[in-house]
This record gives sequence, structure tokens and C-alpha cells, in this order.
Amino acid sequence: MRTKIYNAAVLTVDPAGHVYDKGYVLFEGKRILEAGPGCGPDADTAIDGRGGILMPGMVNAHSHIPMIPFRSMGDDCPDRLRRFLFPLELEAMTPELVYLSSRYAVCELLLAGVTAVADMYYFEDQVARACDEMGIRAWTGETVIDMETCDSPGAEGGLDLCRELIERWKGHDRIHPMVAPHATNTNTPEMLKRAYELAESRGVPCMLHVSEMDYEMSHFREVYGKTPVEFLYGLGALGKNTVGVHCIHMTDRDIALMAETGAKAVHCAGSNTKAGKGISPVRDLRAAGVDVGIGTDGPSSGNTLDLFTQFKMIASLQKTRYHDRSLFPAREIVEMGTMGGARVLSAQDEIGSIEKGKKADLVLVETESVNMFPRYNPYSVLVYSAGASNVDSVWVDGKQLVKEGRLTEADLEDIRNRLETAMTSFRESAQRYAEFI
Amino acid sequence: MRTKIYNAAVLTVDPAGHVYDKGYVLFEGKRILEAGPGCGPDADTAIDGRGGILMPGMVNAHSHIPMIPFRSMGDDCPDRLRRFLFPLELEAMTPELVYLSSRYAVCELLLAGVTAVADMYYFEDQVARACDEMGIRAWTGETVIDMETCDSPGAEGGLDLCRELIERWKGHDRIHPMVAPHATNTNTPEMLKRAYELAESRGVPCMLHVSEMDYEMSHFREVYGKTPVEFLYGLGALGKNTVGVHCIHMTDRDIALMAETGAKAVHCAGSNTKAGKGISPVRDLRAAGVDVGIGTDGPSSGNTLDLFTQFKMIASLQKTRYHDRSLFPAREIVEMGTMGGARVLSAQDEIGSIEKGKKADLVLVETESVNMFPRYNPYSVLVYSAGASNVDSVWVDGKQLVKEGRLTEADLEDIRNRLETAMTSFRESAQRYAEFI
Repeated sequence: MRTKIYNAAVLTVDPAGHVYDKGYVLFEGKRILEAGPGCGPDADTAIDGRGGILMPGMVNAHSHIPMIPFRSMGDDCPDRLRRFLFPLELEAMTPELVYLSSRYAVCELLLAGVTAVADMYYFEDQVARACDEMGIRAWTGETVIDMETCDSPGAEGGLDLCRELIERWKGHDRIHPMVAPHATNTNTPEMLKRAYELAESRGVPCMLHVSEMDYEMSHFREVYGKTPVEFLYGLGALGKNTVGVHCIHMTDRDIALMAETGAKAVHCAGSNTKAGKGISPVRDLRAAGVDVGIGTDGPSSGNTLDLFTQFKMIASLQKTRYHDRSLFPAREIVEMGTMGGARVLSAQDEIGSIEKGKKADLVLVETESVNMFPRYNPYSVLVYSAGASNVDSVWVDGKQLVKEGRLTEADLEDIRNRLETAMTSFRESAQRYAEFI
Repeated sequence: MRTKIYNAAVLTVDPAGHVYDKGYVLFEGKRILEAGPGCGPDADTAIDGRGGILMPGMVNAHSHIPMIPFRSMGDDCPDRLRRFLFPLELEAMTPELVYLSSRYAVCELLLAGVTAVADMYYFEDQVARACDEMGIRAWTGETVIDMETCDSPGAEGGLDLCRELIERWKGHDRIHPMVAPHATNTNTPEMLKRAYELAESRGVPCMLHVSEMDYEMSHFREVYGKTPVEFLYGLGALGKNTVGVHCIHMTDRDIALMAETGAKAVHCAGSNTKAGKGISPVRDLRAAGVDVGIGTDGPSSGNTLDLFTQFKMIASLQKTRYHDRSLFPAREIVEMGTMGGARVLSAQDEIGSIEKGKKADLVLVETESVNMFPRYNPYSVLVYSAGASNVDSVWVDGKQLVKEGRLTEADLEDIRNRLETAMTSFRESAQRYAEFI
């Protein structure tokens, strides 16, 4: 069964940056056969792109998708992690809530044109299960953190769950396990080292929050006279498996160490700035050769799960940080949201661009809505004009999961109703933190 | 004819900040009769808000709406104003193109829940005509600038057009003329003074770009040893009729002078930062007592015309600028986008909040879409989660112009087709600047 999408501006994001103003993409089963200008060859199914923009599926390279129940709670409250997020998670998160929240979040991701997500949370096996069922591509990382959590008495238990997750999901076609030590300052040095070694030995990413918090920075400065990145490097926990999330407070040496070791970075512009934390030096990371992907962070931290909100933010923040409008042209931002994310997850040979042999993870963005006219530069339209609501169709592994802005396989209303019901005791527990939310 | 909207979270944005979690708004003709908790009294028409958020119509306090034809053109090009925007405007903008672009832009504004817009451009009488026909509330300012433009050989002609615009539209119920000297550095001091005097004598706003450009700042520093705001003050052109747009590069004294004279400010976060210009000290302006509204700037500068994109940006940028998450809680940002804009246009007694006697300019935001769940704090949902696509219904002067996300009175497809046709020679002229776009 060959499927063709034609009559669209095809942004391949291939190494040469080919754009076919009126082009087509042909795929068979899970794989792309070819893309090019014109209408292309005959196919079993031909889908009219109606003059829209056809792009590679977007990669949301960092989130905590089961945190849907927390969205819009205490958004402007300082120190919310310790004031209500950690305690409420400990009290109220259950495997069922993680599973149902993940299903809901995947609906939102798919409807926004995100075809791959990297997640870190608790009960991550439930996240993997939900993502598997819903058809999205996912990297799922079990959290290792030096405290009691909803799914483990401490870090040791978290590491055990990582091993189980790897055991169960390694080799799956779409779902990829990760090891996810929470942050540099929330684990012992020994545990950070062991977590990294586990990831390295099993060939999976080791995703952790790095150089994000003021108190994280001062802790490492005061105790070790180092930055968090220098500290990880000294431990042997900075390497090609490392996916450092946030990387806000970075020295030139930090950036050089990441480049030298092949460590990756994920930029969460919206979440970082909504918290007033600062602006990651993404220009400098990229200039040094560090692969950078884009993440929304969890729905509690970043609220939206779509990359269009991030695209605008990244352009604005980086141009402003360096006082230079020409930086981060729209094309580079779209690349970060597709190939950038693929590289961060070491999946650049499988996803991230429209190229022969890659997975048919595709997004058709319509340009008929009022905000999408006119269209001189399709990258500009995606970065500066588009929103999640402009996503018309989405394919993962060649399977159409969104059509005309609606899920083809899942019943969103039913998923929401089931989640709402499962949130009853969560809402009761949340009452205890009413002063913050 | 009394109309009631019920079963919605009503955000009144009144002085006490009343929110009715399950409330209603009742209006008759153009005016609001009452708002409160519960279902309210009987009415001739009762509209079920379906659990959405009912808010005052948003005020987009600065735009150049006829610039739709420029959108997505050369977005990342430095110095685009002089490289292609000014020359292309001079060559290709016609009254017809301004009129049709304005009609198109008003569709976009209304669909995004913007019920009032302040515009400055050329052929502004055509903008006023389009806004009048389309039913939106508008402040329309004819541009005065010391160069040849598409509608005038120079500033003197621009000022004449301002007089004509005032003559024609002063006293209109929805359309309000303004005087709009382009910027502090693009007019002679004499002309700035005369423009302000005209505005003051006729009781209309005097809107101009202030402290926006690096070269504007250095010009005033080098030639006068002053800031642009100090310079306006010295001219007698800073006062309660002044609406200073952008106000990026502001000293403490500038802020004090604006507060002292009653001058207003409009913040265009997205446009300012997309251009890498900087972040306006909005916290300090507001702390000094300066009224601040929110603008998207034109579709060429800011691309989107909706305030939801700006809400997220403002939260992110201000919290980051001051490194404090607690600043600009969502409620304050919604206030800026409603009452803030009303105050900037000296219309605070007529619009900007849901209060007895005010105009029934109302927006119902649905919370059924995937990105809008759950809802703890409705302000948070509007600022951090919502997008223009969540706008369900819009009323201006009590007349429903948007219903279930569609225009009730206008045919968007027809308006776009007519605009597209009228853009033929514009597109040809644009070819001359292909290197930049």
C-alpha cells in the first residue's frame, strides 16, 4: 500500500534543506519512499494537501506528560516544586492516573503535530503503555531521585524501575526506554554515576535536568567549586548518552565540555521563562556543535505541549538575548524542532526529516485558516504565525492518527471523562495546597 | 431585547476583580445590564456558555492592520523597515489594498476575541471604513511622517489627512480617529509638536512609536543629549493624549515623566523581541502608575493579531527580565489586555471590563478543546494555555460577530479571495526585494 500526499509545500529538513513549493511525499508501510516537486507517481491512496505545508513530525524532546492533572495550578507561585508539586505527586499520583493522563496528553501531542515525545516521570511503564497504544513514538524515562516518590521509596528503587523498563521495552519499534535521574542536585554523585553507567551499558539516553535552578548552581559552586556540568564531567556522567535538559546557566567551559563529550541539550524556552529562570545560550551551544532539541516541559511547567508556542518563544528570546534579529531564522527553529530533537535522542537516522528510508512521521499544516495568509516563507509561517490548531493531518509510522484536525483512532471525550473521574482524589489532595494554587 | 450568557466562568475585570465561577452576564442592546453568580434572570435570548470562560473583549492597542500582505515576508531580515518595508509601501499600497487588507485583518481580530483595535497606517480612512462595516470597535490613526508615502507627499499632507479623518469620524459610536506621528525620529520637532496639539485640541489620542530603535536612541542622545521621552516632554508633546508605543529603552526619568504627564504606553512584546530589540520595563512603568496596554503590532512585525500569543510572551519576558516568577501573575496580564488597553485609549468608562452600563463587548472562550483541561485558575488558562482557536463567541456592542469559532456576518473566503486578487501588483513589486524576503 503506497500513500502519497501531494499539493503541499514540502519542507524536507534534509541535509540540503530541500523545500518543494508544490511537492509530494510518497510512503509505503512505515517508511518514506521519496519526496520531490510536482505531483509524484501514482499511489494506492493519494491525499490532497490543499496547498498546506507538509513537514516532518515534530519531536517534543522533553516533557512530563502525566502531569496533565496539575495544569493551570499555581502557575505564578515561586518554589512550587517543593511547595506543592513534590508533595502532591507523592500523595496523589497513581499508576492509573499516570496512564490516563498520558493517554490524554498523547491526544494533545498528536493534534499539535508532535509525532515523538521524550518523557520522564514516575510509573513510566504506564506512560510507555499509553504511548504504545495511542500510536505515538516515545522515549520514556523512569525518574531516579533521592527521596520517596509515588512509585519508589528512594533512588535505588527508581534505578530498579529503570532496569525493568529497559527490560520490557528495549527493542520495541516505537517505544524507547531511558534512564532519567531527576537532576544534578537531587541525586547523590554515586547514583548519578550508576544511572549514567546503566544508560551507557544498555545504549539508551540518560535524560536529566541540568543547570536549571539557582539553588542547584549555588550548591555545586559552594560544595564542589564546580558547575553542575563540570561535576557531571568529573563523575564520568557526561557523554554521548547524556541528554541535559534546560542548560540555562552555562559557562563557556560547560558548553565546551558538552561538545567534547557529545552530550546533548534540550531547550525548554517557555517553561524556563515562565518560571523567570533565564534564557539558555542556545546560540552558543549550537555554535559549539552541541545538538539541541526543543521541549515543552510538562503541562504543569509549560502548559502547552505543542512546539508552535516554543518556536515563537525561541525566536524572540534568542534574538533578544543576543540583540540580533538575524539570529535563529525560522528555518533553523523548524530544524531544531524536528532533526534537532531526533539527534538529541540519537534517532537521526530514523526520524526528524522527510528522506527516503526514514519513518513516515509526517505533519500537514493547513494554510486556510485566517492566521496563515499570505505565505511567502513557509518556515516563517510555521514559526511566527501557526498554532497547534492549524495542524490538519498527522501520520506516525505511516499510519494516519489525525485527519482534518481530529483524532482518527482515539475518542478524546471518552479519554477526558475517564481522566476526570480518576482525578477525584487528586483534586481532594490538592485542596491541602490551596494557598499556593 | 435582553440577552443572557450563562454557565460560564465570568471574569469581570472590574475594580474588585470579581470572578463568578458559574456566572452570567445580561445585556440589552449595546449595554451590559448586570453580571453575577448563578444563572441570572430570564432573558429574551439565553446562551449556554458550556462551562467556558466569559471575559471582556480584548483590546489590541497597537497594530498596522492593513499590512496583511507583508506577513511572513523577510521576518528575520535586519533593518527591514528601510530595506523593503518603506519602499514597498510607497510603491504598492493603494486605498483598495488598505481597505481589503483591513477587512481581512478584522476577521482575524474578531475570531481571536479582539473587540477593539488601535491602528496606525496610511489611507486610514479606508481602515476606518472597513472597521465600521465589519462591526469591530477601532481607533484609527493616520500616519504623519517626514517623507513621501503612498498617501501623501510629506508630513504636512499626513497632518491634513489627520484633520480630515477627525472631521469625518469624530463622534462615531465605534470608530475613533487618532493622530499618529510615525515616531520620534521620523518627524521634525515642529511637526511632532503640531501633531500633538492637533490631537489635544480635538480630544483624540496621539499615538507614536517611542524609544524603540537603537538608532532612534543614539540620534536623540547625540543631537539633543536627551532621550526621546525627554525630548517629547521638552516639546510639550508628552501628555495625557500621548500613547507611546513600544517604550523599550526607558530610563527611570523617562518613566517618571510619562507618569507625571499622564502619557500612556503600549507594550508589543512579540514584535519587539522578534526583532531582537529588547524587553520593555513594563513592571516599572506600571509601578510608576503609567497605564499600559498590549499590542500585537502589525502582521508584518508581529505576525499574529491575537493577544493570547502576547499574554504568554509578556509573562515569560517580564518574569525573566526581573528573574521573578511571581511577577505578572496571569490576572494582571488579562487586565492589561482588557482594561489596560481601554485606559490607554481613554475608553475606560466604556469598555475593558464587564460592568453595568459598559458596552457589551464580550468574548466566550471554550474550554472543551484538548489544550484547555483542567481548569483551576481561569486567568492561568487564558494566559498560559489558550490560543485564538479557543475563542468560541464574540460580541461587540451586544451584537454577536463570532459564533462557534466562525464569523456570523462576514464571508472570510470571499474576503480573502478579493484581497488575493488585489495583491497581484503588490506581489510583483515585492519581487524587487527578493534578496531580503
